[in-house]
Amino acid sequence: MPRVTFHPDDESVEVERGVTLMAAAKAAGVDLASICGGDGICGRCRVIVKNGNIDASPTTLLSRDEVQRGYVLACQTKVIGDVVVEVPPETRAEEGQILIDIDAQRFRALYQEEKVSFKHEPLAQKLYLELPPPTLHDNLADHQRLYREIRRQREAPIMQTGLKVLQTHPKLFRENHWKVTATLGLRGGTVEVLQVEGGDTAERNYGIAVDIGTSTVVAHLLDLNTGKTIDAEAMYNSQRAYGEEVTRRIIYAERGGLDQLQKTVVNDINNLIAAVVTRNQIMQQDCMAVLCAGNTTMMHLVLGLDPAYIRRDPYVSCSTAPPPVRAAEVGVQINPRGLFYCLPAIGGWVGGDVTAGVLASGLYESDEIVMLIDVGTNGEIVIGNRDWMVACSASAGPAFEGSGVKCGMKASRGAIERVQISSEGNVIYKTIGNIKPRGICGSGLIDLVAGLSEAGFIDRSGALQPEASSRVREQDRLLEFVIVPAQRSGTGKEIVVTQADIENLLSAKAAIYAGAYILIKALDLDFSDIEKVLLAGGFGNYLDRAKAITIGLIPDLPLERIRFVGNTSIMGAKMALLSREAFEKSYEIAKDVTYYDLISFPHYYEEFLAAKFLPHTELERFPSVQASLKVKARMS
Amino acid sequence: MPRVTFHPDDESVEVERGVTLMAAAKAAGVDLASICGGDGICGRCRVIVKNGNIDASPTTLLSRDEVQRGYVLACQTKVIGDVVVEVPPETRAEEGQILIDIDAQRFRALYQEEKVSFKHEPLAQKLYLELPPPTLHDNLADHQRLYREIRRQREAPIMQTGLKVLQTHPKLFRENHWKVTATLGLRGGTVEVLQVEGGDTAERNYGIAVDIGTSTVVAHLLDLNTGKTIDAEAMYNSQRAYGEEVTRRIIYAERGGLDQLQKTVVNDINNLIAAVVTRNQIMQQDCMAVLCAGNTTMMHLVLGLDPAYIRRDPYVSCSTAPPPVRAAEVGVQINPRGLFYCLPAIGGWVGGDVTAGVLASGLYESDEIVMLIDVGTNGEIVIGNRDWMVACSASAGPAFEGSGVKCGMKASRGAIERVQISSEGNVIYKTIGNIKPRGICGSGLIDLVAGLSEAGFIDRSGALQPEASSRVREQDRLLEFVIVPAQRSGTGKEIVVTQADIENLLSAKAAIYAGAYILIKALDLDFSDIEKVLLAGGFGNYLDRAKAITIGLIPDLPLERIRFVGNTSIMGAKMALLSREAFEKSYEIAKDVTYYDLISFPHYYEEFLAAKFLPHTELERFPSVQASLKVKARMS
Repeated sequence: MPRVTFHPDDESVEVERGVTLMAAAKAAGVDLASICGGDGICGRCRVIVKNGNIDASPTTLLSRDEVQRGYVLACQTKVIGDVVVEVPPETRAEEGQILIDIDAQRFRALYQEEKVSFKHEPLAQKLYLELPPPTLHDNLADHQRLYREIRRQREAPIMQTGLKVLQTHPKLFRENHWKVTATLGLRGGTVEVLQVEGGDTAERNYGIAVDIGTSTVVAHLLDLNTGKTIDAEAMYNSQRAYGEEVTRRIIYAERGGLDQLQKTVVNDINNLIAAVVTRNQIMQQDCMAVLCAGNTTMMHLVLGLDPAYIRRDPYVSCSTAPPPVRAAEVGVQINPRGLFYCLPAIGGWVGGDVTAGVLASGLYESDEIVMLIDVGTNGEIVIGNRDWMVACSASAGPAFEGSGVKCGMKASRGAIERVQISSEGNVIYKTIGNIKPRGICGSGLIDLVAGLSEAGFIDRSGALQPEASSRVREQDRLLEFVIVPAQRSGTGKEIVVTQADIENLLSAKAAIYAGAYILIKALDLDFSDIEKVLLAGGFGNYLDRAKAITIGLIPDLPLERIRFVGNTSIMGAKMALLSREAFEKSYEIAKDVTYYDLISFPHYYEEFLAAKFLPHTELERFPSVQASLKVKARMS
Repeated sequence: MPRVTFHPDDESVEVERGVTLMAAAKAAGVDLASICGGDGICGRCRVIVKNGNIDASPTTLLSRDEVQRGYVLACQTKVIGDVVVEVPPETRAEEGQILIDIDAQRFRALYQEEKVSFKHEPLAQKLYLELPPPTLHDNLADHQRLYREIRRQREAPIMQTGLKVLQTHPKLFRENHWKVTATLGLRGGTVEVLQVEGGDTAERNYGIAVDIGTSTVVAHLLDLNTGKTIDAEAMYNSQRAYGEEVTRRIIYAERGGLDQLQKTVVNDINNLIAAVVTRNQIMQQDCMAVLCAGNTTMMHLVLGLDPAYIRRDPYVSCSTAPPPVRAAEVGVQINPRGLFYCLPAIGGWVGGDVTAGVLASGLYESDEIVMLIDVGTNGEIVIGNRDWMVACSASAGPAFEGSGVKCGMKASRGAIERVQISSEGNVIYKTIGNIKPRGICGSGLIDLVAGLSEAGFIDRSGALQPEASSRVREQDRLLEFVIVPAQRSGTGKEIVVTQADIENLLSAKAAIYAGAYILIKALDLDFSDIEKVLLAGGFGNYLDRAKAITIGLIPDLPLERIRFVGNTSIMGAKMALLSREAFEKSYEIAKDVTYYDLISFPHYYEEFLAAKFLPHTELERFPSVQASLKVKARMS
């Protein structure tokens, strides 16, 4: 049997001829990065074949140069004879950049299928200009000379320059022998000259996309020239100290806390920016734009806009489409003349994060009927296609984001992201970064509850069954299930899920399912009319769609119709930051989506209560789950 | 003979039947305001006929209501029988508002003839809005609700609102029951919501037009709603301490004085604004826009732009069309969110003041060839019509503005504005405000030098002739002419003109005439091809065109082709402030005028020297002056 050796770990394994390098790596205990699960579309499992006999399928995900240097996709490469393989750092799943680029990769696959694409034209652009030095016959003023040259390179019918920038022109232009780099930012219909630097600095042009969630704030650092995501960082929203849910934050703002809330989230954003720029040795002043997607209240709070009337009949925002402002005015620490954009909201309860989702998923131009379910502290559901779109919002709570759950955590290193309960009742899990577990994130919780249900450790109402497993025990008068004993955990403490945690999760999934159901019925449709379900959210890197059906989070449709699309809010924010066309499209989307207020549907609460079962009170709504329960019943 | 009595002074006089009320007033020693000199076009000599028998010509300058209340134009009304007339305050030439509205009135006459008119649409506009309160079926956000209502009232495809203003919306709208007033300002193609106030404040909307001259700064306070000039104030530019001429200021700026120069002129502007708003009990925060016209260097200095390269080959400005900026950024004290505009310049040496002149005079749309001569510290000449326009600039010095002249002063109360030298050699003069003389302004100097020349008190080179008049005397080794003895002057000191003053004036007029001549020749024209000469400048309220020819300031053309148009810079600034259309036209004008650099004409200096005579070395260029000299020679 051929032997495959993996460097730099020097692990080796004998495998059958014809197995993939991916399978060989698994057998050797070497973890390779992968998102698509071996379909050859994510391009993450790149390894270098140093020598040996292989059979690699052709791929567009490797450049000609890379192929010449020996790169292959491990999942698309079969072992023929002995092979020596080097695993480059970016492919080592246990190292570094766990969350970086995951979404970008996921979307790269999505795009290839959906043909969603926008012209690359970032909201802040740098142009290197060699101005013709003035002569007696061409003695146009510095300011107008700059405009003329800019307009030779791009369309810019209306331009604006701030006084501070204008004041620098004469000296700067002459000291740099008329070779300068202008940074241009879009403000409505106007192109603003944000700064002019001497020489050619066009290479250094960065932007930050931010997803401001009620529970989590995520920032991605982008190279605006290439569109590449350089780094990413996430943290819990420190505003949580003032209330877990949107409504509590609004109340806090009403009681004089608006300024505090504004400063708090801006501070979070600044911390995230500082982390990603420092790590990549990029200067803050080379970041010229920040674009945020967030729910409408988060958008109000980051801008210091009074959100009080969002929660009061008739639910009116201060603004659903605030103008770009100077980052310094908001307190965001990039180049002080850089711009701060927000994606427009659909309404008071369906924000720019959902606009981003519709943009990123391509729902707005789909021929088929698509349902986008964005699971966050509020769960928003959009249904529609190129002709019509409707949306609603359901208050789910932060359980899926690992918040409000005893051992919950966000999808970062050490989070349990996948769980299986073996037939013997053992818990098999995988953590992000393959390190010792420190907690459990959304995708892990879905797996866990589905597993507990299938194993009979909880009943259909979610109640833990102490007699069913030794891992179920009472602690402080509350039942809980031990996922990881203290000695195996990364924190030295047990990782458990409590009865309350399970109930939180069931409430969350019930709120979302009920919202989707009410919306479907309001449109006089059935779930079967939905040709594609896109499940979005910051659960983790992977999501087991079957398990999401098992717990009744998403409707029981054939798995091929369901796709986990990750954080569509940050993805849409990135697309808009990188493409004026996408940014402008987001305004159209925000206008075109009709908001349905669930409160106005009298059956909503009833539906919510019915959906709190596993998977649902009406089992017939989940025929695949019903069938597997029957099989299990027969087997036991 | 009919008797005419004038109230409130109770002066009365007997006059022939058929003489005008204007003539009767003069005979009675009552001074009535008038600019047109009795042609019935300025509308300034309005009086009220209380009773008596008159014959008044019809006029469009009085409203139907005014006619019913007894108003007539004194110059257009003949005395038939005894009449009692009341002189209203605004018509009393010796009181108040001397300089106010003079230009507006002058231009009203000009417009009637030229049909120059622009749509009234001020750069800052107030809109009172009654927003429909939101309902569940119309729960548009505050910001978008405001935009919707604004767009119902006016066109505004691209709008922008600053964060600070946006933040005030929710509370302000609700406290004022959705009745608010929005102030809109134009910034390029964008309409900016500058502020929103509660209730209806639309009535209070003021603006300031400023003419920033090298020697004089003039500010007019305008009611932007009505277009009316409320008040005006002028002062010498305090930057004079750093150099009389443009070039010296540039050098001072280069040596680190830019900031000082900027603050100095802004301080002047602030003083002028404070004076006019205080006097009229208007609040600074109700002033939302300032529009400046000035030469290119003045524009650079007020904005803090480095003017260094304007004076160096190839004579390049930092900007010829700087963008509108927030007034607070420049330091100008109006509403801090108000806007500060500059009219665009034609080039480094032909500034926004000339653009203003071309705009105000209607030169740009004239069928005939027009020559506009704007006499300031620099004299600019524009020649052209609707098809082509060329301009040049000649360094004249500030003599015509009363600066650099021993007893010179600007055209304000107490300035001698008209001078005649009687056949007995006595000096007859008239001051602005008809008070005791305090100095002499530009128009007075022109009259004086022409008179001195005609009387033979100076020779053709301008040299004072001590033997010709007892008023010519030597003082500190310099000849001078006593205009007003100490006991008759308002300052208690003699008012004199020195030999140096006369030489300054001759240099100034020579620079301007030579410039005009060179330009005419460069265009292959003769002065006789010029169908209209417009003489502009801050000389005073009146200017004797014949005297301007006598000294050789303007070419010897029939008087009916020559018109004194006053301060066209402030007039153009006012037009642009009051009309977006005029403002936009100014950008076209600035682009359409071709600049001729006098320095590049080798004959310029020669022409200048030849023009320093009275009226010129080549007497045949001034046939009317030549003829009158001959008559005089024959008579003496």
